[in-house]
Amino acid sequence: MKILTFGEMMLRLKTPNNERIMQASQFEATYGGAEANVAVSLASLGDGATFLTKFPDNLLGDRGEATLAQYHVDTSEIRRGGTRMGIYFFEKGASVRPTNVVYDRAGSAFATATASEFDWENILTDVDYFYFSGITPALSAELELAVTQACQYCQIHQIPVICDLNYRAKLWSPEKAQATMNKLMPYVNVCLAHDEDFVSSLGIEAFDGNMRHGIEQKDQFKSAMQQVVAKYPQCHTIASVLRDIKSVEDSRWTATMLHDGKFYDAPTYQMHVMEGVAAGDAFGAGIVHGLVNGFLPQEQINYAMAASVLKLTITGDLNLVRDQEIRNLMNDHGGVGMQR
Amino acid sequence: MKILTFGEMMLRLKTPNNERIMQASQFEATYGGAEANVAVSLASLGDGATFLTKFPDNLLGDRGEATLAQYHVDTSEIRRGGTRMGIYFFEKGASVRPTNVVYDRAGSAFATATASEFDWENILTDVDYFYFSGITPALSAELELAVTQACQYCQIHQIPVICDLNYRAKLWSPEKAQATMNKLMPYVNVCLAHDEDFVSSLGIEAFDGNMRHGIEQKDQFKSAMQQVVAKYPQCHTIASVLRDIKSVEDSRWTATMLHDGKFYDAPTYQMHVMEGVAAGDAFGAGIVHGLVNGFLPQEQINYAMAASVLKLTITGDLNLVRDQEIRNLMNDHGGVGMQR
Amino acid sequence: MKILTFGEMMLRLKTPNNERIMQASQFEATYGGAEANVAVSLASLGDGATFLTKFPDNLLGDRGEATLAQYHVDTSEIRRGGTRMGIYFFEKGASVRPTNVVYDRAGSAFATATASEFDWENILTDVDYFYFSGITPALSAELELAVTQACQYCQIHQIPVICDLNYRAKLWSPEKAQATMNKLMPYVNVCLAHDEDFVSSLGIEAFDGNMRHGIEQKDQFKSAMQQVVAKYPQCHTIASVLRDIKSVEDSRWTATMLHDGKFYDAPTYQMHVMEGVAAGDAFGAGIVHGLVNGFLPQEQINYAMAASVLKLTITGDLNLVRDQEIRNLMNDHGGVGMQR
Amino acid sequence: MKILTFGEMMLRLKTPNNERIMQASQFEATYGGAEANVAVSLASLGDGATFLTKFPDNLLGDRGEATLAQYHVDTSEIRRGGTRMGIYFFEKGASVRPTNVVYDRAGSAFATATASEFDWENILTDVDYFYFSGITPALSAELELAVTQACQYCQIHQIPVICDLNYRAKLWSPEKAQATMNKLMPYVNVCLAHDEDFVSSLGIEAFDGNMRHGIEQKDQFKSAMQQVVAKYPQCHTIASVLRDIKSVEDSRWTATMLHDGKFYDAPTYQMHVMEGVAAGDAFGAGIVHGLVNGFLPQEQINYAMAASVLKLTITGDLNLVRDQEIRNLMNDHGGVGMQR
Amino acid sequence: MKILTFGEMMLRLKTPNNERIMQASQFEATYGGAEANVAVSLASLGDGATFLTKFPDNLLGDRGEATLAQYHVDTSEIRRGGTRMGIYFFEKGASVRPTNVVYDRAGSAFATATASEFDWENILTDVDYFYFSGITPALSAELELAVTQACQYCQIHQIPVICDLNYRAKLWSPEKAQATMNKLMPYVNVCLAHDEDFVSSLGIEAFDGNMRHGIEQKDQFKSAMQQVVAKYPQCHTIASVLRDIKSVEDSRWTATMLHDGKFYDAPTYQMHVMEGVAAGDAFGAGIVHGLVNGFLPQEQINYAMAASVLKLTITGDLNLVRDQEIRNLMNDHGGVGMQR
Amino acid sequence: MKILTFGEMMLRLKTPNNERIMQASQFEATYGGAEANVAVSLASLGDGATFLTKFPDNLLGDRGEATLAQYHVDTSEIRRGGTRMGIYFFEKGASVRPTNVVYDRAGSAFATATASEFDWENILTDVDYFYFSGITPALSAELELAVTQACQYCQIHQIPVICDLNYRAKLWSPEKAQATMNKLMPYVNVCLAHDEDFVSSLGIEAFDGNMRHGIEQKDQFKSAMQQVVAKYPQCHTIASVLRDIKSVEDSRWTATMLHDGKFYDAPTYQMHVMEGVAAGDAFGAGIVHGLVNGFLPQEQINYAMAASVLKLTITGDLNLVRDQEIRNLMNDHGGVGMQR
Repeated sequence: MKILTFGEMMLRLKTPNNERIMQASQFEATYGGAEANVAVSLASLGDGATFLTKFPDNLLGDRGEATLAQYHVDTSEIRRGGTRMGIYFFEKGASVRPTNVVYDRAGSAFATATASEFDWENILTDVDYFYFSGITPALSAELELAVTQACQYCQIHQIPVICDLNYRAKLWSPEKAQATMNKLMPYVNVCLAHDEDFVSSLGIEAFDGNMRHGIEQKDQFKSAMQQVVAKYPQCHTIASVLRDIKSVEDSRWTATMLHDGKFYDAPTYQMHVMEGVAAGDAFGAGIVHGLVNGFLPQEQINYAMAASVLKLTITGDLNLVRDQEIRNLMNDHGGVGMQR
Repeated sequence: MKILTFGEMMLRLKTPNNERIMQASQFEATYGGAEANVAVSLASLGDGATFLTKFPDNLLGDRGEATLAQYHVDTSEIRRGGTRMGIYFFEKGASVRPTNVVYDRAGSAFATATASEFDWENILTDVDYFYFSGITPALSAELELAVTQACQYCQIHQIPVICDLNYRAKLWSPEKAQATMNKLMPYVNVCLAHDEDFVSSLGIEAFDGNMRHGIEQKDQFKSAMQQVVAKYPQCHTIASVLRDIKSVEDSRWTATMLHDGKFYDAPTYQMHVMEGVAAGDAFGAGIVHGLVNGFLPQEQINYAMAASVLKLTITGDLNLVRDQEIRNLMNDHGGVGMQR
Repeated sequence: MKILTFGEMMLRLKTPNNERIMQASQFEATYGGAEANVAVSLASLGDGATFLTKFPDNLLGDRGEATLAQYHVDTSEIRRGGTRMGIYFFEKGASVRPTNVVYDRAGSAFATATASEFDWENILTDVDYFYFSGITPALSAELELAVTQACQYCQIHQIPVICDLNYRAKLWSPEKAQATMNKLMPYVNVCLAHDEDFVSSLGIEAFDGNMRHGIEQKDQFKSAMQQVVAKYPQCHTIASVLRDIKSVEDSRWTATMLHDGKFYDAPTYQMHVMEGVAAGDAFGAGIVHGLVNGFLPQEQINYAMAASVLKLTITGDLNLVRDQEIRNLMNDHGGVGMQR
Repeated sequence: MKILTFGEMMLRLKTPNNERIMQASQFEATYGGAEANVAVSLASLGDGATFLTKFPDNLLGDRGEATLAQYHVDTSEIRRGGTRMGIYFFEKGASVRPTNVVYDRAGSAFATATASEFDWENILTDVDYFYFSGITPALSAELELAVTQACQYCQIHQIPVICDLNYRAKLWSPEKAQATMNKLMPYVNVCLAHDEDFVSSLGIEAFDGNMRHGIEQKDQFKSAMQQVVAKYPQCHTIASVLRDIKSVEDSRWTATMLHDGKFYDAPTYQMHVMEGVAAGDAFGAGIVHGLVNGFLPQEQINYAMAASVLKLTITGDLNLVRDQEIRNLMNDHGGVGMQR
Repeated sequence: MKILTFGEMMLRLKTPNNERIMQASQFEATYGGAEANVAVSLASLGDGATFLTKFPDNLLGDRGEATLAQYHVDTSEIRRGGTRMGIYFFEKGASVRPTNVVYDRAGSAFATATASEFDWENILTDVDYFYFSGITPALSAELELAVTQACQYCQIHQIPVICDLNYRAKLWSPEKAQATMNKLMPYVNVCLAHDEDFVSSLGIEAFDGNMRHGIEQKDQFKSAMQQVVAKYPQCHTIASVLRDIKSVEDSRWTATMLHDGKFYDAPTYQMHVMEGVAAGDAFGAGIVHGLVNGFLPQEQINYAMAASVLKLTITGDLNLVRDQEIRNLMNDHGGVGMQR
Repeated sequence: MKILTFGEMMLRLKTPNNERIMQASQFEATYGGAEANVAVSLASLGDGATFLTKFPDNLLGDRGEATLAQYHVDTSEIRRGGTRMGIYFFEKGASVRPTNVVYDRAGSAFATATASEFDWENILTDVDYFYFSGITPALSAELELAVTQACQYCQIHQIPVICDLNYRAKLWSPEKAQATMNKLMPYVNVCLAHDEDFVSSLGIEAFDGNMRHGIEQKDQFKSAMQQVVAKYPQCHTIASVLRDIKSVEDSRWTATMLHDGKFYDAPTYQMHVMEGVAAGDAFGAGIVHGLVNGFLPQEQINYAMAASVLKLTITGDLNLVRDQEIRNLMNDHGGVGMQR
C-alpha cells in the first residue's frame, strides 16, 4: 500500500535550551512540515509513504531529501528547482509564555511551483491514498490548482483522499480558506479538523477559541462533524483532537471521530509536553495508518491518539516512535517505568 | 524620560543542562545584577535607561558594557578601573533541591569604588528617576555614602527615588541593613519589598520565612506596608511580590501594592519556573515603567506582575520580553497556544 | 570504617537534550552501575569506600577508574584485563513515554571475570562492611561463585553483608534469580528490596507490578518483609522504596524499613524527576551510611529517603549530594528558596 | 567624526566544527554584511559609526539591531519593515576544499526597499563620511538609485565618499556592474578594489583570476589603480589587498595603496587562516579609520593591513579587535608569545 | 548499475574538540566502516549502491540503517539479529601525537553472523559489481566462508569483484591474512592495496613501514603491483595510495595504478588534514565509480585521488562530497577561493 | 617515592571554538596551575605525587580537589578556607594574534594563606622530593616565607629541591623576583629556567626576548646555566626549553640541560600547536620523573622534551599523556600513523 502526501517541508531553526531568539547564538536545524511529518510517521510505522514537494536545487534541498530518506520515505518524486527552502524559526515557550514561530517561507521553491510541474497521471499511478492539508492550497493559487487536479484524478481513479484542514491564519483569511476548502471538500473521504479548523476553513461553528477549555467543547465538535458529513456525504470519516492547554508544559488531550455515522471517543491523556508542534500530524498519520491497515474504528482513534500524545514527548516535527511504543501506551498496564 | 539605576552587574557563570557544579565542564556566561536587570528591562520596554556602575578595565568589563549596549541601555556613565569583575556561579536546582549560588564578588571594581568617583551633579543632570537596591549600600561604606549623596541630590532636585530593599543575608546582617536603610528610606518615594525584606531591612514584621506559604501572608505584608508609609510619608508607593514556592519548578505568584493609601492586588499566576532569579527586578522594572508612563495603579501592579512571571520563563538575569508579550499575558483570552 | 562494594560499572551513553537515540548525534558519557554508585555515595558522605570490579586495560577502563577516584573512592583493588567495558545507552523518556535503556554489557571485563581473580582473604582484610546487589551474581556463574565465597568469608569474619536484591529481568529469569538469591540470603544482614524484587528474586508476593500505585501497597511490602525476616533471621534490617510513578517527571516517593522487628516509615516526597535512575542505589547508600555511623532507625530511613529523592534531581548515575544537603531536606523548614 | 555606512546585514548560519551542511544538526548564528562589518570595526576602534539599512520588523531584525548596538554602532537610522532578513549559510572549507556560501537573500527587507525610504537630507546631516560597497547597488535598481542620490548629496555637501567595489558574481554580471559603477565612480574619493573587482566592476584588467598567485600580480594592480585615478581624478586614494591563497588555512597577504600619486606598500603576512571572510571589510575599515584620524599614508596602509590579517584569526564576519592589538601587530617585536 | 558492498559498519564515538578520551564528557556519534563508506560514496556519486551487513535488532541498528538510507544506499538486504553493534572509539591526534582508535567490535552482530545467513543466489541477482575488503574475512571464519562463496558466485556469473586488502593488525596476523587472501585473490578483478597491505596480506614486499616517506617508495609499490598481476592475471587493475605523513595535520598524497599492464600516476596533493580516516575507502569508491562509469584509466586514478584527498577535509568516515566538487579539484584553476 | 609540589591551582575558563572573550557565551571550565600540573603529570606517570595548596571551602574548591584526585594526585594535604578560588580566563590566539590571558587571582585562598598554615615538619615527613615554582613566592610575602621554611627543612633533611623559576611579569618585577630567588636558589638542587627566567629572576643575561628565535640563542642559555651553577654549586642540574615561535600554531621546540658539568641536548620537534600553555610544566615533570626513576641524563632530557611537546597537542593545563606515548615519540620510527 502506498500513500502519497503533498505539501511543503521547511528547514526548522530552533533556539537551543529554551533560549529566546534574542539570546540564541545557535539554532538546532531540523526539517518539518505537515504533510512531510505524516509521510515520515507512516514510513516509520512500516507503510509505504511517498512525499511530493519541490525543493531548491541546493544543499538545503539535499539535506531535506536526506532527512526524508533517512526515515525510509520515498523521495523519488521530489521536484528540484526554484530559489529557496522555506524556513521557520521556532522559539519554544515556557509556562505562561507561548511558543513563538517566525515564518520565513515566502518565495520558497514549493510556494512558487506551478501546477503544471505535477503530472498527476504519472505521480498517482500505483498510489493507493492521497493526503494533503489545507496549508498546501493556502500557499498559492497554483498549488490550489494542483491540489484540485490531484483530487479530480483521485475521484476518477477511486483513490481515497485524506485532508487535514490545518487552518493557518498567517497564510490566509477564513473567507479565502472557506472559498477554497468548500471546493475541495467534495473530494475528501477522510477529514481531520482541529481547533478553529471547522469555523475558519469550513464556516461551521465548533470551537470558541479558548484553548484552555477545548475538551469540554466536545459536543460542539461532534455537532460540527455531523454538519460536515451532511454536506459532504462522501466523507465517511472525520476526526478531531481536543485539548485543554493550561500552560506550555501542561495539557490534557483527547480525540473523537465520526465514522459511518457513529462516534468513537479516544481516552484522555494528561501530558507534560516537550514540544507542542506536529501532534496533529501525528494524529493524522495514526488515522491513515489505521485506515490503510484495516483497524476497527475504536482501535483507529485510540491508535491515532496514542501516536499524537507520544509526539508531544519528542523534540522536532517528526514523530519518531515505533509501532510497539504506540501499542504499549494504548495497552498501558504498569505505566512508564523503565524496562531493564 | 530617563531613569538611572546604580549598582553592580556581575559575570554570571551557570552550569549547563541542570548539572551540578561538581559535574560541569562548561559554564554558560551571561551578566546580571539587580539594578542592571532593571535598566535592561526598562530599555527593552522603550524607556530611556542609564546604568551606572564601575567595571574593571579588562575584557570582562568590555563584555559587560556590550551586554548592556545590546539591549539599548546607555552605558556612557560607566566607570572603568579597579581590579576585577564580580562573579557569581549559578547551579540551578530541581524539584526539592534548591538552586545554589556561589558568590565571588569580593574585591570587585564596583565594591571597591569610592564615593568620590560618582559626581552626582553631573551624573543626575537630565535624569528623571533614580533607582537603587539595598545591595548597593550593602557592598561597602563608600557605596553607602555614594547612595546617600545621590538621594540627597535627588531630594533637592525633586528626582523621584525608587528603592528595592533587596535584602541579602550573604552581604550584611539585619542590624547593619536596618541601620543603613532607615537612613535611606526618608528619601525613597517608591519602595519594593519582598519576602524577608520588611523584617530584615526595616525591622518590620511581615513574613514568617516560609516560602511555601507566602501568599497567605498577604495581610501581614499589607500591614507592614502601612507601617512603612506611616513612618516614611514621602513614600507614596510600596509594592511586594508574594509567592508559594512548592518546588524549584512549581510555584504560585501574586503581588500587592499600596499606593496613596489604597491597596491594589495583582492576579495570581500558577507557574512552571525555568529560572527563579531576577523576577523581583522584573517586577520593579514593571512598577517603574508604569510610574514613568503614567499607568493607573491597577494597571501598574498588573503590568509589573505579568512582567515578573514572564521572567520566570526565561533563562538568565535579563527579562527579555517585549511590551506586547506582557500585554498579551495581562489580557490573556485563549491561553498559550501558538499563533501560526 | 571501610565498606567494599562489588559489582560492575559501565560506560553510560545518554542522548542529550531529551533526544531519542534515532536523533542523537552525540552521547553524554558518564559511568554508573549499582555497586559503584553506592561506593561513590558513601565516599561523598565521608565514609571509606572501596569499589571492587574488573575493568578492561584500555582508555575506557582508565576513565572508569578516574571517575571513581575523582569522588574519593578507593580504586586500588580494581582488576584490569578482559576485552571490553560494559556500556549502556540511555534514552530519557518524557511524560507518557518511558525511559529506554539499551544494554551492551555482554562480554564485559567484569562479566567474564573468574571467581579465582578475587582472593577474598586479601581483599576483605580491613574491610568492615561488604555490599553487593543481585546484578553481580546475575552476570555469570563465576560471579555468583565469587559472591558466595565473599559471603562465606564475611560470615566467618563477622563482616556485615548488605544486599540490594536489584532484580533485572534482562539478566535472568525469576526462577534463576530465586535459585541464586535463596542461597545467598542466609548471609545477608541488611537487605534492600524494591518493586518486583520480593516476588522475582525471593518468590515472595509484595507488589502487583503497577508502578502507578506502589505506595498504597505498603502493607503488602511490610508483610513480605516479615516473611523475609522469618525465613532469614540473621537479616536484621530490610528496607524498601515505594513509589507512585504518574509520568516520567511526576512521582511520589516514600520508604519503609523493618529493623529488629519494628517498622519505620519515611516521609513522602512529591517529586519532579530529572532522572529516575539510581535512586535505589542512593537509598541503599543512605541505609549503609546510617548503619556505619550508628544512626537510630528512624533517622536512618529518613536519611536514606532524602538521599534517594535528591538523586532524582541529578543527572547521571552518581548521587552527587553533600551530607548537608540531605540534612537540609530532612529538616526542611522554608522550602527550596535560594540562599543569597 | 561620524561615518555612515549603507548596505545589507544578513543572518549568517554557519555549520559548527567544520561540518558540511549535509552533516550539520546545528548552525551558529551571527550577523554580517560588508557595510555593517565596516561600521562595527570603526565603532570598535572608537570612531562614530552609523549603520543604515532596513531590517524586517520581527525578532530577527531585533537581533540584528542588538548585534550592532552591542558594538556601539548607532542603529537609530535603521528602517524596519519588509518581509524577511537576508540569510547566508556558511560552510567553512578545509585544505583543498573551498569554503561554500549558500545565499538566501532574495526578497530581503533591504533588497526590496525603495529609494524614497532614504531621505538623505536628514540622514546625512552631521555625517562626515559616507561608505558603501558595490553590493548595495547590485541588490536592486531602487538601491542603485538610493546610492546615487546619496552620492549626489555628498558631492554637494563635500562629504567624502568611500566605496569598496566588492564585485559579487552571484548578484550581477560584469556588464551590469560596470554600467552602474562607472556612473557611481565619479563621486568616489576613496576606492577599495580587490581581486577581480578592477576587471569586473570597472572593466580594467588587473588580475588573472588565479588566487594562488595574487601577490606577484602587484604591478598589474598598480597599473590598474593608475588607470582608475586617471579616469576619476577626484579619487585621491585607491587601495587593494593582494593574496596568495595556497589552501583554506594557508595564505600570504599584503596590500598596496595609491594615494595622491604615490604608492605605499604594506608588509606581507604569512597567515594560518581561521576564517577567510570579511578581511576586505576589515581592511576597508582600517583605511577609513586612518582617513578619519589623519594617519600618514604609510601608517594608514600598514594599519589597514594589520587589521585585515587579524580578521583572518577571528570567527564571524565582525573584526573584533582592539586598536592596541592592531598596533602590537604593526610594531611586532617578539612575536606571538603570551603575556602573563 | 548496482554495486553491492559487504562488510561491517560500526558506531563510531569520537571525542569532541580534540579532547583525549580521558577528558571527554561527550562523544560524537556517527557510523562508519570500510565497505559501508564505499557504499555511501558510490550512492552520493549517483551509482546504485547496496550495503550488505548484519545489524543488531535494536535502536543502534535502526540508526545505522537510517544513516545509510539518508545517503540513498539501498538497505533492503541488511540482516538484523545478533546481540550488539560493533563500536569504535576515536581520539583524534594532533601534531606529533597519533590518532588513537579503541576498537570494541568483538561479538558484534556481523562478526558473529554465519555464512548461511547470506544466500548469495538471491543477494547477487541483479548485482553488477561486488566489493569487499580484507576486514570482512578477518572478522571470522564464517565471514571468510561467506566471502568465498560470494566470490565463487561472482566468478560463475561474471560479476566483477573489487577487493581492498585493508590489512588490520588488530584483527589478524600477516600469516593468517596471507593464507586467506591468497585463496581469495584469484577471484579479484580490481585490487586496492595501500601501505603495509602488500607485505602483510599478500607477502609481497613493497613498503618499508615508514609513513613519513611513502611517496618515495613508489617504485617498490609498482614492482609489487606487477608481482600481484603476474600471480593473479585475472586482476586487471591494482591501485595504491602513497603518502608522506609528516604530522597528523600535514601530509602529501598521491597514488598510482596498474591497469592492463600500464601504470597511471595521480597528481600529488599537499594536504592539511582534518581527519585521516577512510581516505582509502574514498579512493576505492573513486576507482569503482570510474570502473562503473567507463572512465579512462588516467581519469579514473585522478578522480579517485581527488575524492580521497577531499575525504581528508571532512569529519566522519563518510566522504560527503559531490561529483562536482571532485571535478573542481581535478580541474582546479584558481584554487580554493570562495565563490560568491 | 613521593614528590610534593607546592603552589596554586586556578579555575581556568577558556572560550570555546577559538572565540574571543567578547564573543563567548560559554567558558570551558578546567583547572590548572604550574605546580598542580607537575603533580598531575607525575601521578599520571606512576610516581607518587602530593599537591599542597589552599582551596576555598566551597564547591569550586571541591571541584579542584576532585580534578586532582581523578588523576591520582594525593590531595590529603590540601588546606581549605579563605574566600575564593583564583581564576584565569583563557582566550586562545590564532596565527598572528597572540593568546590572551586575563588573570583574576587576587585575593585567592592560596594567595592569602599564611606561612603558619604549612607545618612543614608534618607535611614533609615521608616526602622524597620538594617542587615549587617562582610563582609561589611571587604571590605574597607569606608564601615566600613558607617556601623558604620548606627549603630550609629540605636542606636539613636532605630532601632534594626542584625549582622552576617561572617568571611572571604580571606578578612581580625583575627586581623583586631577583631579590627573592637569589635567597631561594641556594636551596635548589634542580633548576628549570626558560625564556626570560634567567634575566628576570636571576639577573643573568641569556635571552634577547625574541620568541621567534629562541633556539639560535642556545649558546647564551648554556652560558647562563654555567653562571648559575658557578654561583649555586649545590644545583647539580639545570634545564631549559628553547623555542622558535613563528605563530600561535607553528613552532619548533628543543631543550638543553647542564648536569654535573656536562650539557645534554634534546632533539628538535617541529610542532603544530593545539595549546601553548603548561609545556614548561610538562617538561619540568619529565625532568623530575627522570630524576626520581634514575634515568641517565640524555634519557632524562629526551623524555622531558617529548613529554613537553606532547603537552602542546592537548587542550587544558594538564599533560594527560601516558608513559608509553612519551616513549613512542622518543623512539619514533614510522611516525604518526594510526594503529588499527
